[in-house]
Amino acid sequence: MDNVVFCKMWQNHYREVHMTQPIRMTDDEVLWENIFITSITLQRARELELAQVGLSMAQAGVLYQLKIAKEPMNPMKISRRMHKQPHTISALVTRMEADGLVETAKDLERKNWVRVSLTKKGQEAFKRQITQKLARNVTSCLSKKEKDAMAPICNKLRARATGIIRQLQPDLYSDLLI
Amino acid sequence: MDNVVFCKMWQNHYREVHMTQPIRMTDDEVLWENIFITSITLQRARELELAQVGLSMAQAGVLYQLKIAKEPMNPMKISRRMHKQPHTISALVTRMEADGLVETAKDLERKNWVRVSLTKKGQEAFKRQITQKLARNVTSCLSKKEKDAMAPICNKLRARATGIIRQLQPDLYSDLLI
Repeated sequence: MDNVVFCKMWQNHYREVHMTQPIRMTDDEVLWENIFITSITLQRARELELAQVGLSMAQAGVLYQLKIAKEPMNPMKISRRMHKQPHTISALVTRMEADGLVETAKDLERKNWVRVSLTKKGQEAFKRQITQKLARNVTSCLSKKEKDAMAPICNKLRARATGIIRQLQPDLYSDLLI
Repeated sequence: MDNVVFCKMWQNHYREVHMTQPIRMTDDEVLWENIFITSITLQRARELELAQVGLSMAQAGVLYQLKIAKEPMNPMKISRRMHKQPHTISALVTRMEADGLVETAKDLERKNWVRVSLTKKGQEAFKRQITQKLARNVTSCLSKKEKDAMAPICNKLRARATGIIRQLQPDLYSDLLI
């Protein structure tokens, strides 16, 4: 039922765009709008469920990157992996350190580098974040066939988007792993 | 070639997660991570191409909502359609008015409402934004079959995510149309 209502809303949305404003869109651009609105809706759902355990999306992202890191992490590496501006992540790390979620220390091997790591409080916050499972299991509404289709589609889209990012900002991605 | 490299990176990423930290994830949670990282990569690509014409994602979102609106828009309606906090959009609209992209006027029909509309400069900025087509055509890397699969998948995911949002924040979505 929900899906039917939503499809109708979507059709209305596009009818609206085309009726009131002659914005010419390719099929890919129509699909982009759909994917884009879907992704911000998914992010909003995740944001709200993280708020239930007192975390923002950005904080959760940093906690996750630190949790899975195999190598020492500094704000620059975190910013690349989260596709955020370095100064945004530096400011965030400073606030998270004030909140006791992370700690920073001078890197012994590379001067001028700051190594960021999880505190015990940060570890606990990470555990709280993975207890929030509604948004993270959103694809449970899809059929097996649709789920199987998603991984290769995501991989292609991410590869293409990364290509665009490299083209527009070539220097930043030279040593990016994810 | 790019796709193959990317798949390997992705596999490494998950092997890394599972090897170094015993984070148990359902298949849906693995898929969520993939979708989430893909969506922030797509958004970053779009952000960079919008920066080429001097616009932020948030500004472009407001310009788009005002351009397609059939009814008078106020900051609250814009915030709902963009899945953002009302205070974030109010502050953004204030800055965009200072930049000459939008103008605000008291709503004649509903007191305490502010009607937001595009200025001529805002119309021109909207035209610039739709000239940036790389990210908006990102799905051109997909096969016809994959493209056809995307719309119903997006519709289901958006419906489910909207359900989660309503559950976590019931009052905000009572009159949301998109």
